[in-house]
Amino acid sequence: MANSFLDECTAVLSRTPATLDALLRGLPDVWIHADEGKLPSGDATWSPYVVMGHLIHGEQTDWMPRLAIILEHGEKLPFTPFDRLAQFRDSKGKTLSQLLDEFASLRRENLAKLAAMNLQPEQLNSRGTHPALGPVTARQLLSTWTAHDLGHILQISRVMARRYRDAVGPWAEYLSVMHP
Amino acid sequence: MANSFLDECTAVLSRTPATLDALLRGLPDVWIHADEGKLPSGDATWSPYVVMGHLIHGEQTDWMPRLAIILEHGEKLPFTPFDRLAQFRDSKGKTLSQLLDEFASLRRENLAKLAAMNLQPEQLNSRGTHPALGPVTARQLLSTWTAHDLGHILQISRVMARRYRDAVGPWAEYLSVMHP
Repeated sequence: MANSFLDECTAVLSRTPATLDALLRGLPDVWIHADEGKLPSGDATWSPYVVMGHLIHGEQTDWMPRLAIILEHGEKLPFTPFDRLAQFRDSKGKTLSQLLDEFASLRRENLAKLAAMNLQPEQLNSRGTHPALGPVTARQLLSTWTAHDLGHILQISRVMARRYRDAVGPWAEYLSVMHP
Repeated sequence: MANSFLDECTAVLSRTPATLDALLRGLPDVWIHADEGKLPSGDATWSPYVVMGHLIHGEQTDWMPRLAIILEHGEKLPFTPFDRLAQFRDSKGKTLSQLLDEFASLRRENLAKLAAMNLQPEQLNSRGTHPALGPVTARQLLSTWTAHDLGHILQISRVMARRYRDAVGPWAEYLSVMHP
């Protein structure tokens, strides 16, 4: 019972690699590299390929490293800021299949480490310091890791669906994904 | 080349059952039956479980039956209106695993039928009559089938992520899925 929260999170976190694998592996490049055009800022929007690199960087530098900081240093040591653009450098030369494999492997290792920590409820209430958002708890971090996965599955689905905004013709009216 | 459009569509359509299987099978009920609360109209919003039933009904009554109407009757015979609430009746007593299996099986059969039709470009331009939207083409129907899958993967991810709207604490600011 104490760990139903952790079980809930890991139920989702452990499924994400296989979900993205089933959705993306072997897809034609037109889908893998689809994006939503330039933002008003001039920045590129993210394709499924770019998202995979971002998820890998999160496994390497965000979720488990920040959990470790919370448990070892509490609020005294703010997290290292996360590099939201790292994947444009780190994914260079890699195929989508390589990114899917790398993500699955890192996620598996991170969930094994998390399980081995056998976190207790009081540890989930431990606080750390986000460099921009201020005080946050380990529980909020793990909730965010989980919701972040789902948010990027959502993003990939949206980017892909919107490739067909014109192709669906009058049906666009019924497809909320096509509405801005 | 003539069939690159069909190949694109079927690349996505053939992956959806495994994607939903990887995302949902075996998840705790709190995720499977999560929804977004009541709409202002008083209607219920859809859980992942409800969405699976809706996708099944689409395989049975929407996409391939409408394609057959277009190719056999053209614009003369309007499509049978789609029942958006059929799943509340048809899914009764079924487990999520049963729905995932049923969807995968129906989708496999439908894609086998579609492949056997060996549709040519001029057939993709054939027109039918949507009971509310008016004239539509076979190409628009197949595009919509594809985008509809992605829209429901998006919806399931959104519904699940939003269960954690409060749990993520200050991180909600960074998670666009949490914004209305």
